[in-house]
Amino acid sequence: MTGITTTGEKRLVLISGRAHPQLAEEVSAEMGAALVPTSAYDFANGETYVRFEESVRGCDAFVLQSHCAPINQWIMEQLIMVDALKRASAKRITVVAPFYGYARQDKKHRGREPISARLMADLFKTAGANRLMSVDLHTAQIQGFFDGPVDHLWALPLLADYVRGRVADTGSITVVSPDAGRVRLADVWSDRLGAPLAIIHKRRDPNRPNQVQVHELVGDVAGRTCVLVDDMIDTGGTIVQAAQALKDNGAKEIIVAATHPILSGPAAARLKDSPISEVVVTNTLPIPPAHQFPSLKVLSIAPLIARAIREVFDDGSVTSLFDGNS
Amino acid sequence: MTGITTTGEKRLVLISGRAHPQLAEEVSAEMGAALVPTSAYDFANGETYVRFEESVRGCDAFVLQSHCAPINQWIMEQLIMVDALKRASAKRITVVAPFYGYARQDKKHRGREPISARLMADLFKTAGANRLMSVDLHTAQIQGFFDGPVDHLWALPLLADYVRGRVADTGSITVVSPDAGRVRLADVWSDRLGAPLAIIHKRRDPNRPNQVQVHELVGDVAGRTCVLVDDMIDTGGTIVQAAQALKDNGAKEIIVAATHPILSGPAAARLKDSPISEVVVTNTLPIPPAHQFPSLKVLSIAPLIARAIREVFDDGSVTSLFDGNS
Amino acid sequence: MTGITTTGEKRLVLISGRAHPQLAEEVSAEMGAALVPTSAYDFANGETYVRFEESVRGCDAFVLQSHCAPINQWIMEQLIMVDALKRASAKRITVVAPFYGYARQDKKHRGREPISARLMADLFKTAGANRLMSVDLHTAQIQGFFDGPVDHLWALPLLADYVRGRVADTGSITVVSPDAGRVRLADVWSDRLGAPLAIIHKRRDPNRPNQVQVHELVGDVAGRTCVLVDDMIDTGGTIVQAAQALKDNGAKEIIVAATHPILSGPAAARLKDSPISEVVVTNTLPIPPAHQFPSLKVLSIAPLIARAIREVFDDGSVTSLFDGNS
Amino acid sequence: MTGITTTGEKRLVLISGRAHPQLAEEVSAEMGAALVPTSAYDFANGETYVRFEESVRGCDAFVLQSHCAPINQWIMEQLIMVDALKRASAKRITVVAPFYGYARQDKKHRGREPISARLMADLFKTAGANRLMSVDLHTAQIQGFFDGPVDHLWALPLLADYVRGRVADTGSITVVSPDAGRVRLADVWSDRLGAPLAIIHKRRDPNRPNQVQVHELVGDVAGRTCVLVDDMIDTGGTIVQAAQALKDNGAKEIIVAATHPILSGPAAARLKDSPISEVVVTNTLPIPPAHQFPSLKVLSIAPLIARAIREVFDDGSVTSLFDGNS
Amino acid sequence: MTGITTTGEKRLVLISGRAHPQLAEEVSAEMGAALVPTSAYDFANGETYVRFEESVRGCDAFVLQSHCAPINQWIMEQLIMVDALKRASAKRITVVAPFYGYARQDKKHRGREPISARLMADLFKTAGANRLMSVDLHTAQIQGFFDGPVDHLWALPLLADYVRGRVADTGSITVVSPDAGRVRLADVWSDRLGAPLAIIHKRRDPNRPNQVQVHELVGDVAGRTCVLVDDMIDTGGTIVQAAQALKDNGAKEIIVAATHPILSGPAAARLKDSPISEVVVTNTLPIPPAHQFPSLKVLSIAPLIARAIREVFDDGSVTSLFDGNS
Amino acid sequence: MTGITTTGEKRLVLISGRAHPQLAEEVSAEMGAALVPTSAYDFANGETYVRFEESVRGCDAFVLQSHCAPINQWIMEQLIMVDALKRASAKRITVVAPFYGYARQDKKHRGREPISARLMADLFKTAGANRLMSVDLHTAQIQGFFDGPVDHLWALPLLADYVRGRVADTGSITVVSPDAGRVRLADVWSDRLGAPLAIIHKRRDPNRPNQVQVHELVGDVAGRTCVLVDDMIDTGGTIVQAAQALKDNGAKEIIVAATHPILSGPAAARLKDSPISEVVVTNTLPIPPAHQFPSLKVLSIAPLIARAIREVFDDGSVTSLFDGNS
Repeated sequence: MTGITTTGEKRLVLISGRAHPQLAEEVSAEMGAALVPTSAYDFANGETYVRFEESVRGCDAFVLQSHCAPINQWIMEQLIMVDALKRASAKRITVVAPFYGYARQDKKHRGREPISARLMADLFKTAGANRLMSVDLHTAQIQGFFDGPVDHLWALPLLADYVRGRVADTGSITVVSPDAGRVRLADVWSDRLGAPLAIIHKRRDPNRPNQVQVHELVGDVAGRTCVLVDDMIDTGGTIVQAAQALKDNGAKEIIVAATHPILSGPAAARLKDSPISEVVVTNTLPIPPAHQFPSLKVLSIAPLIARAIREVFDDGSVTSLFDGNS
Repeated sequence: MTGITTTGEKRLVLISGRAHPQLAEEVSAEMGAALVPTSAYDFANGETYVRFEESVRGCDAFVLQSHCAPINQWIMEQLIMVDALKRASAKRITVVAPFYGYARQDKKHRGREPISARLMADLFKTAGANRLMSVDLHTAQIQGFFDGPVDHLWALPLLADYVRGRVADTGSITVVSPDAGRVRLADVWSDRLGAPLAIIHKRRDPNRPNQVQVHELVGDVAGRTCVLVDDMIDTGGTIVQAAQALKDNGAKEIIVAATHPILSGPAAARLKDSPISEVVVTNTLPIPPAHQFPSLKVLSIAPLIARAIREVFDDGSVTSLFDGNS
Repeated sequence: MTGITTTGEKRLVLISGRAHPQLAEEVSAEMGAALVPTSAYDFANGETYVRFEESVRGCDAFVLQSHCAPINQWIMEQLIMVDALKRASAKRITVVAPFYGYARQDKKHRGREPISARLMADLFKTAGANRLMSVDLHTAQIQGFFDGPVDHLWALPLLADYVRGRVADTGSITVVSPDAGRVRLADVWSDRLGAPLAIIHKRRDPNRPNQVQVHELVGDVAGRTCVLVDDMIDTGGTIVQAAQALKDNGAKEIIVAATHPILSGPAAARLKDSPISEVVVTNTLPIPPAHQFPSLKVLSIAPLIARAIREVFDDGSVTSLFDGNS
Repeated sequence: MTGITTTGEKRLVLISGRAHPQLAEEVSAEMGAALVPTSAYDFANGETYVRFEESVRGCDAFVLQSHCAPINQWIMEQLIMVDALKRASAKRITVVAPFYGYARQDKKHRGREPISARLMADLFKTAGANRLMSVDLHTAQIQGFFDGPVDHLWALPLLADYVRGRVADTGSITVVSPDAGRVRLADVWSDRLGAPLAIIHKRRDPNRPNQVQVHELVGDVAGRTCVLVDDMIDTGGTIVQAAQALKDNGAKEIIVAATHPILSGPAAARLKDSPISEVVVTNTLPIPPAHQFPSLKVLSIAPLIARAIREVFDDGSVTSLFDGNS
Repeated sequence: MTGITTTGEKRLVLISGRAHPQLAEEVSAEMGAALVPTSAYDFANGETYVRFEESVRGCDAFVLQSHCAPINQWIMEQLIMVDALKRASAKRITVVAPFYGYARQDKKHRGREPISARLMADLFKTAGANRLMSVDLHTAQIQGFFDGPVDHLWALPLLADYVRGRVADTGSITVVSPDAGRVRLADVWSDRLGAPLAIIHKRRDPNRPNQVQVHELVGDVAGRTCVLVDDMIDTGGTIVQAAQALKDNGAKEIIVAATHPILSGPAAARLKDSPISEVVVTNTLPIPPAHQFPSLKVLSIAPLIARAIREVFDDGSVTSLFDGNS
Repeated sequence: MTGITTTGEKRLVLISGRAHPQLAEEVSAEMGAALVPTSAYDFANGETYVRFEESVRGCDAFVLQSHCAPINQWIMEQLIMVDALKRASAKRITVVAPFYGYARQDKKHRGREPISARLMADLFKTAGANRLMSVDLHTAQIQGFFDGPVDHLWALPLLADYVRGRVADTGSITVVSPDAGRVRLADVWSDRLGAPLAIIHKRRDPNRPNQVQVHELVGDVAGRTCVLVDDMIDTGGTIVQAAQALKDNGAKEIIVAATHPILSGPAAARLKDSPISEVVVTNTLPIPPAHQFPSLKVLSIAPLIARAIREVFDDGSVTSLFDGNS
């Protein structure tokens, strides 16, 4: 037969945007694979420029970018990186978004709204992404927004193990959901820790229409170590109100555990001044010094992402390793 | 200028599959528009055949099919109808699925599962559907699975008005969610009826791992008229267990309100023998005589669908009419 | 250069739907490759559930499903399996449909009909199929309905070798086409067996409009061993009428050879009571016991499919092996 | 409500490529609609240039081009015209190809061949065509190659009416298929004329392998007026051999009727010197003077195309008018 | 015939993002059509939210957004608006980007760069845009990046008429290109004003490799009124250097005319301190007070955009009105 | 784990259309890889037929075709070859078009024109091409027309080295651009040769409207060896007029260097009779004997293409090797 035949090789490359370089460095160190040297900067009018400084032809490329503020800036940079990879003949492109932006706009809450979480999935596909990897999506249905494989990682084991190690008497733990929307997450925590459950239920007072919502406590928290769980902490309002309700109901100690530390605006101040003794998060998002506070504990998500990337590259099972989806 | 110029006209046509002809007839009667005469039958080996008996060229076509059992049969028939409309030069094709099949497979619950609710949306798009109309999707995120406009109608006003008319003392009503997943739906009911809320919370007993779940009641139901709400009743297991828990906690009367009467297998028997005094549903799905029982009340969804179709055809606002999405 | 480099490997996996497990087992045995353990069942309302019990990441997956009754059920199951494979990061997905459903709806026979054979090809593509493999498509043009490679296998050598081995005096064979549409198939048989050809020609009697068609015999069959050939036997009507016409014209023996044994409804009874001495088919479709009859001979298509799958996996030539297309 | 509202209008425009201007002029005259003034020429290196000389914004555009030799030239010109229409904001674009090129490459006859008829359909779609219109496709399955509506017109009534008017004693007519592949076409003619059928069957002599095919005559033609029918006449070889076989079997007169007069290379000479008394075709393709001969009768397809275009523009029924598909 | 028939209407709506509300108001006033009331704001973490406050179902929607800094923010907002329009059943969506972002990244200047101008076109298409309208694209090839109609408007007549009106003795004008890349633009100006041409040619000094480029003046400018033309002024470096070269060569007066006033960073300061007597631009981009300076003259592009939108809505000819493309 | 595992191999194959077999043979010889035996011919009516005579399953296929006259014929042949490769299961298909047809129709010069260069890119994508390789595209923006990787090779080093070797005193060289549109190309030459630059500037005489353009010479050429550079020579008009202008201005010798020798119509005669002493081109296009002339020097582009193909196959860096893009 005509032609030239060789044995195939495959090469994994790690690429990082500018949103969260520290996490990218940690993933790189975990994997023993240097980041591809990359030029990325903004022109005077704000347009983003990107160029890879070595060949990525035929590579299995993983592009890391956390969707933190200024979020449109970083999503666009990741889209442009994917375009550059596609045009530079990368063989397969995986968008790694430890925190997936616009996840809360996953449906039309009212008419004439966008479904931005679906739009982002389509934009990445259009730019050239073949696969998506993320941690603790706001709703699991977002997996279905992307037309291709999604590796959905879970930070729960990481967070739960830390909490378990920190609380002397784990029999005193009660897992608490800060509102009705997070009950399913709290349920998984409850299973993992073997602890009972309580719920803070926000609802309108039926006797006082158009009034502020009351925060009812469902379950028993007096004298308990309460672990308040959520997928993200944005401005901290809900969490701090929930913590106050727990305190008011006699909770002995309050620990907050959440995957994504958005910590926008007043979050740091609110949390610092709250009855919460410790806030445990991961580093899926960068936390600038001004947003840090003494009771904040940050666990690294890098080992989890590094192992997932390696399994994807080696065609191993992400499901078996992480108990996650896919 | 060359060419031939005329004023444009537009023509709405209603088309029905074989799954739920009665609903189609009701919608047709509400609108004052006859159904397009259609041949539809199965060949000896089960292949489905469809043909429209009059021209649909240039039409704004609405294809009604409820996704009841045998569900794959009826979805495939609707796909084939859409293909036939596309090839017959229909101008715009709206899939009307009062109950949207595979809605519960809207995410990967575990690795290596399909996301069938997204797949169905893509199949309809591929066949030629431009738009989707449905009632009370299992999760609102399914709107984001379809690449195009989705008219998401709500049966709540219909059901709630009936319940309000039926209960003499509406001050005695408590809205009850049968599990944590339906709390948001119950919350909307609570607002609509000005009634307090209670929750049946299924969870594992932390002291007895691997045991059956207990059904905890959250809220006050003793002496109250409980309205148990859900989007669908399939085998009826969850609803009947919740009703029993309400009874055990002193509820005066129990009414069940749900949009979609799937009523599979043991549902009718279970509901008939339960402490539920009335089960209120709509006719988004056909209910064969064998699945009916004395305490079942069926409200027609046809007027809602008819008005929505008319608004879509007239470029009116579905949002304004139905308080729905879009 | 940065990154991690390894030599590539590739892994073939066989997956079977529930339509024809016996054929899948035979193919698996021929190849020495176990089927991927798979959960597949229907929910109470008929929705199909599928999950693979081991990782298929990076695999070259072949999904076998014969499109027998209930045909919409099995096509939908195969579509859902393809979706699950795509989302589980299979590298390449080949739909293996030994009998391709809806093949006879390959054109609009009249206005406002679907072209379902094209629709099925598009649905498989949308679900995620990269390639298609089938045996003896009803018309070869169906290859052009799929936007990608189609491996079109031929059962003719298998069937013809059996017939040759069964007839003592091959010089006495005449190949017969049961109608004008199958003449080309009969012609290939004629070449293969070195036997003359005859045709049963159905046509309207010009002198009696709107009357039943007459079956004219073209060619010489008196005292001959007639081999009636077709691609499929559905209800058996055409074949049995043709056999009777052969008998009436003095045929010594009548053998029927066809690839796909649909054998719907009255087929088994008709064939059993006909002058046909043997009906030779393959097992591209399962034949339930009730559809079997003493003169039915079933040859296994499994070795052919197994060899084709292996060639596709190894990048060999299917054309050279099977004299087929591609 | 905000915005500006007007009543819609729609405008039909006819556009013609350079392949067959005479047919375009006839269609234009039939419709009473001038052709859009268009510049079309080739640059020195053969690149085709096209520009419309008046606005086509918002138009319902019909682009006529017959796929005659040099066929690749004319198909490419039509593709470029469609691109220019799309970019000039035409609202809907219908490709009118009275003779559809590459129709005979509608399947892989052997491995590693293209399926060019499907490719052409995809190229037109990519360029921006929304719809396709053609006359007497070589195989009806080609309708399924285009992802959109296809208006498939039939020249049969035109040809058959002419033949009927020409033959004094229609009772003497026998319809003849020149080979097995055209039997279905002949069958429709037979119905239309109420005439019996005969077949010229080409097949290998089983006793002389690797020899030329013999032309067997099936049916009775002695003393009959034979109407040999086909969809196209290319080099004329098959038709002339068939005519000779009819003559040898005692036919009184031989008339040939075919839709598409390709008349390549030796066709005119062969037909002129044959025992055929008249060759009836339509003008779906231009016939240069050098390819004409005394016994050639050309009927105009323009009225049929004009009526079909008008019905498509008016959202009428092409099926009802022409007995065609769709 | 079945169904409901009405005469069609069409409704134009204007929608504006937050980048340049003043221009949108001007276009709205020109057209006599109020902007659709729209909610648009950012969440605490920077995610953009958009909702239209009245129905846009069936509308012909024009979405105005200038791509000024922060450019990624405003492009993403426009994408999200398009998504919301698509899901709200707008009939046709035209992206109006008076200044098209990333236009200068229209090719790979070096390996492994993105082609961001193409990427943006694809992102808009994916979000749901059917058409694009822009003014003076950096290179005309960008029209070919969008898969659909592009209305490419020209500001030249506006700018040139102003310049002509301002210069007493038009016979004293020389049109000057600031570098080789703008010579074609200068050529069109030269035609329009009937004025001679000069070029500032930047090139490396061949005798001093790796040195700064010299600015050679080609043509005669001594005592002339020089009109320096460009499509955009970003940081102003090139223009100011060119002006200095003109001054050095004896120009009497220097006027700068450019369509897009990006005026990033040092631009205002540089221009103010330069020998330029007047800088004429349009308001395709907003100019914050800090970027304004006494010699800056801003002409409104709103009338041009308003007329183009109206022509597009009315299916008129944009080409004929503006001498532009399409 | 189930399934069959093997190590992967990859196989490069070279395929050539009929446009420029000599170049394909040279590339094949350079690479030490025979061309895939291929049947390609035209049917009587001009339809193109293609078939590969050995298996290409799983191959990395490179399809060479130069877009020379009859250009539509050769582009269509290449499209058909790509379709055949796709359907024959080639793994990756790269279209190699040393001269890319329709490159000059890369924008709408006026309204209602096509953008044929984009159309061609889309047609190749639709047929199944994954990648594109070309030499010296007319404008670099054409890279952005293809939705995938483009390897853009540069002939400049080849041409410049030849010129340097040919001119005894390289200090006497002046690089000349024949018009304003080629100044950037001339600039790169100037850098490469360390030579000064001159420009022939075509423009209308402002004092004589509607008159022919004058050819102004910018820069100093008296007594110099002028190297006139362009990307292609079509009819030769511009080049010959420029050469005459150089001669008139005292140039000592004139050499023309261009990549693509289209040499249409009068080109050979014009160039032969011009003051040009040598015309240096590459063989990206075939030059029939009738278009050759004594002063024409043809350098082979085959080594460059061969090395680029090898790098693409080996996942090496084309950028590093050729200083090109990607």
